Amino acid sequence: MEDKYVKEITAKSEDFSQWYVDVILKGELADYSPVRGCMVIRPYGYALWENMQKLLDRRFKETGHKNAYFPLFIPESLLKKEAEHVEGFAPEVAWVTHGGQEELAERLAVRPTSETIICSMYSKWIKSWRDLPVLINQWCSVVRWEKSTKPFVRTAEFLWQEGHTAHRTEEDAEEETLRMLEVYRDFVENELALPVIKGRKSENEKFAGALRTYTIEAMMSDGKALQAGTSHNLGQHFSKVFDITFLDQDGKLKYVWQTSWGVTTRLIGAIIMTHGDDRGLKLPPRVAPIQVVIVPIFGQQKEEILEKSRSLYQTLKDYFRVELDDRDEYTPGWKFNEWEMKGVPVRLEIGPKDLAQNQVLLVRRDTGAKISVKEADLIPYLTGLLDDIQANMFKEARKFMEDNTREAFNFEELKNIIENKKGFVKAMWCGSGECEKRVKEETGATLRCIPFDQEQISDKCVVCGKEAKKMVYFAKSY
Amino acid sequence: MEDKYVKEITAKSEDFSQWYVDVILKGELADYSPVRGCMVIRPYGYALWENMQKLLDRRFKETGHKNAYFPLFIPESLLKKEAEHVEGFAPEVAWVTHGGQEELAERLAVRPTSETIICSMYSKWIKSWRDLPVLINQWCSVVRWEKSTKPFVRTAEFLWQEGHTAHRTEEDAEEETLRMLEVYRDFVENELALPVIKGRKSENEKFAGALRTYTIEAMMSDGKALQAGTSHNLGQHFSKVFDITFLDQDGKLKYVWQTSWGVTTRLIGAIIMTHGDDRGLKLPPRVAPIQVVIVPIFGQQKEEILEKSRSLYQTLKDYFRVELDDRDEYTPGWKFNEWEMKGVPVRLEIGPKDLAQNQVLLVRRDTGAKISVKEADLIPYLTGLLDDIQANMFKEARKFMEDNTREAFNFEELKNIIENKKGFVKAMWCGSGECEKRVKEETGATLRCIPFDQEQISDKCVVCGKEAKKMVYFAKSY
Ligand SMILES: [Zn+2]
Ligand SMILES: [Zn+2]
Repeated sequence: MEDKYVKEITAKSEDFSQWYVDVILKGELADYSPVRGCMVIRPYGYALWENMQKLLDRRFKETGHKNAYFPLFIPESLLKKEAEHVEGFAPEVAWVTHGGQEELAERLAVRPTSETIICSMYSKWIKSWRDLPVLINQWCSVVRWEKSTKPFVRTAEFLWQEGHTAHRTEEDAEEETLRMLEVYRDFVENELALPVIKGRKSENEKFAGALRTYTIEAMMSDGKALQAGTSHNLGQHFSKVFDITFLDQDGKLKYVWQTSWGVTTRLIGAIIMTHGDDRGLKLPPRVAPIQVVIVPIFGQQKEEILEKSRSLYQTLKDYFRVELDDRDEYTPGWKFNEWEMKGVPVRLEIGPKDLAQNQVLLVRRDTGAKISVKEADLIPYLTGLLDDIQANMFKEARKFMEDNTREAFNFEELKNIIENKKGFVKAMWCGSGECEKRVKEETGATLRCIPFDQEQISDKCVVCGKEAKKMVYFAKSY
Repeated sequence: MEDKYVKEITAKSEDFSQWYVDVILKGELADYSPVRGCMVIRPYGYALWENMQKLLDRRFKETGHKNAYFPLFIPESLLKKEAEHVEGFAPEVAWVTHGGQEELAERLAVRPTSETIICSMYSKWIKSWRDLPVLINQWCSVVRWEKSTKPFVRTAEFLWQEGHTAHRTEEDAEEETLRMLEVYRDFVENELALPVIKGRKSENEKFAGALRTYTIEAMMSDGKALQAGTSHNLGQHFSKVFDITFLDQDGKLKYVWQTSWGVTTRLIGAIIMTHGDDRGLKLPPRVAPIQVVIVPIFGQQKEEILEKSRSLYQTLKDYFRVELDDRDEYTPGWKFNEWEMKGVPVRLEIGPKDLAQNQVLLVRRDTGAKISVKEADLIPYLTGLLDDIQANMFKEARKFMEDNTREAFNFEELKNIIENKKGFVKAMWCGSGECEKRVKEETGATLRCIPFDQEQISDKCVVCGKEAKKMVYFAKSY
């Protein structure tokens, strides 16, 4: 009986993809909808997203950004203004062609990203160097008509934030691009406990319309890479097309330099795939919708235990996100399994023996360790315990990433690692798009990034053997 | 020079509609976009919306609701399931017909409201009486292809929240419907300083698919009504069509009872139109993006004054939403006009004389009153002053509403008031849709609501003279 709930989840080691879908559905993070490729984010999953939003939004505001809202629709002519951009996005745009009974004179794209509509406004708003920088962020949903979808990781509609900034100089834009990449790294590593590699994307992998794209890459526990956040220096590509000019201090009319950057609900997918295990989700305490769940174990003293549980709930709720599971229709064991599956970091059990000794039993989701704690010490103990769980989850994930990062010195080695092991491959690269494409075609792995932390592990390109310019990471990815 | 900025705004008394658009554009709340009927909400306007969201979202959570996210798109077949509902919304739906290069097999509506897509999920999720109530809210944008638009008040796309709940009994649903109406009244009156009339909509004016619709109606300062929030008891209309059943405690399979309720960014329009004056916006302190603006007046002591201004800013920013306007390129007078136009509740001036006396000058946006306050008393004084401004703004708006609410005892009087005076007309009504329609056709006014606070001002219907059942409010509206 007590294991039944968990047994409904496929084992992670058996079928990673099925396990992923199982924990999302059974954990009530999300559900399939009647709309092809679109999911419903259920309250438990949305609460996780809200916690993530709060922590990110605070960082955006601390770095001087303000939120705004731009239209959901982009006229086709506007989307097509920047050639590389439209080429990148046109194949996956959803088109509105009718409003009410009437056919529209011009088709409207449901925004796949908002550079073009935002640039059309910036060209109106920006006149002088005094108007710069413009530092705006938007929280919204976007639509990309993907052929194959996977909850959170790839869906036709998803939630995200997109920052769009305009600057006087190229240096200012580059500084902003890197500042926001660092904001993402800090957020993803410290709040989500996901270690990442920071670096630059190759020309083949950069954002459609960007000058340079930077990325943070995380490793899922099946060894695949997941792009956890990107920050683009757009250069003057868009400002020239959308005529975004300003009168500089020297009296000259100049084009602004722009950036854009974003993270999405796919980060929820990354949390699941990095931390989860055979028992289900494992949520980092900083963003977990419920940090502590109280499960009373009635024994012969139902009334007293229930009363104590309620008083503990009242005490703890000012300090932690806490829930009291006082349902009658389930056994404690069933509840343990359910809350473990939902990834709650700490379970607090209180039974007759605990009651008699003025203590509670705490059970860690990450290690399974059980600790008896005196009621008087509970608040400081729990505070420290949640920090400890957060730190431990990050440490475990970083160890996994290190253990699954290997070096390759020639193409056979590279192919062999990608085919037979999981994880990232560090290798030297000559910088040619040809070599990069050959890796993709023959192994299925892509060049994930040119990391900021460079090591000279050899002087030859892993593919062609010619002189190497950079060390890069190759991996299969989501 | 000092009046120039303000002179760019049309006088409110001269042309109310033009004044409205002027303050929105010059106050940088919003801007027109290249998409027909869609506006851009600029950072200053969006900060106002964020403050409103926070205060509302807290109330939703305190009453047990959780946020979730449902797809932007609704398949045509789903939207058409509830007959009255589709009839109400179909004329103004934007349709997606193509994804990428392909034509879709079934058209997708861009959600005009989410009852249908949410009901399709509730029918999956709800099985037992233990699953009830389901109390979910969604913050999102919706699209209604309106012919004529006006920023905030009527746009093709707008932001809102929509609550969707499911209950065991009709009484539970009715209680929820009225609870959320009261949440709206409390929010709108106490945070936005907008007095409202609480009541029920007539059959003609109710939501498409609802059993009963309740409303709060506010009066704009041109005398027109604006529906500030609505709460619908949906009965079992949707649950029967979408087959949302549960096994009750008595072992019987029953249909759930549902509610939905929403407020939108049109509340920003209501704030502007209720409180604004010839000098521009006047924002209620509780939601104003900037509550206090510091304007230094340099005189001969620029460095000292600037230093003091900065230290005041540092002190105040932990208590209030405060901004320091230390721009060099504008005169103090120009700044005064700008911040008045942007509706900041309190201006804090600091000049050489103030500096010498350890005091500052506070200027109220609502009354224009000037008060010298010792620096040592500043924080408690400002706290009280902001409360006082909030209360005064509500009082003024309520007085305006009372002064512009008149009684009519026959059709001639009703017509005359609507034609020649502005505001609300209280009148008795026999309850017939015919009489209601006649008012609409001959005066342009609609039946705004059947107020909860009933008075028996006569015993005859104001239109047909037959026996009256209820006192109602008639008014022209947005
Ligand atoms: Zn090479
Ligand atoms: Zn009548």
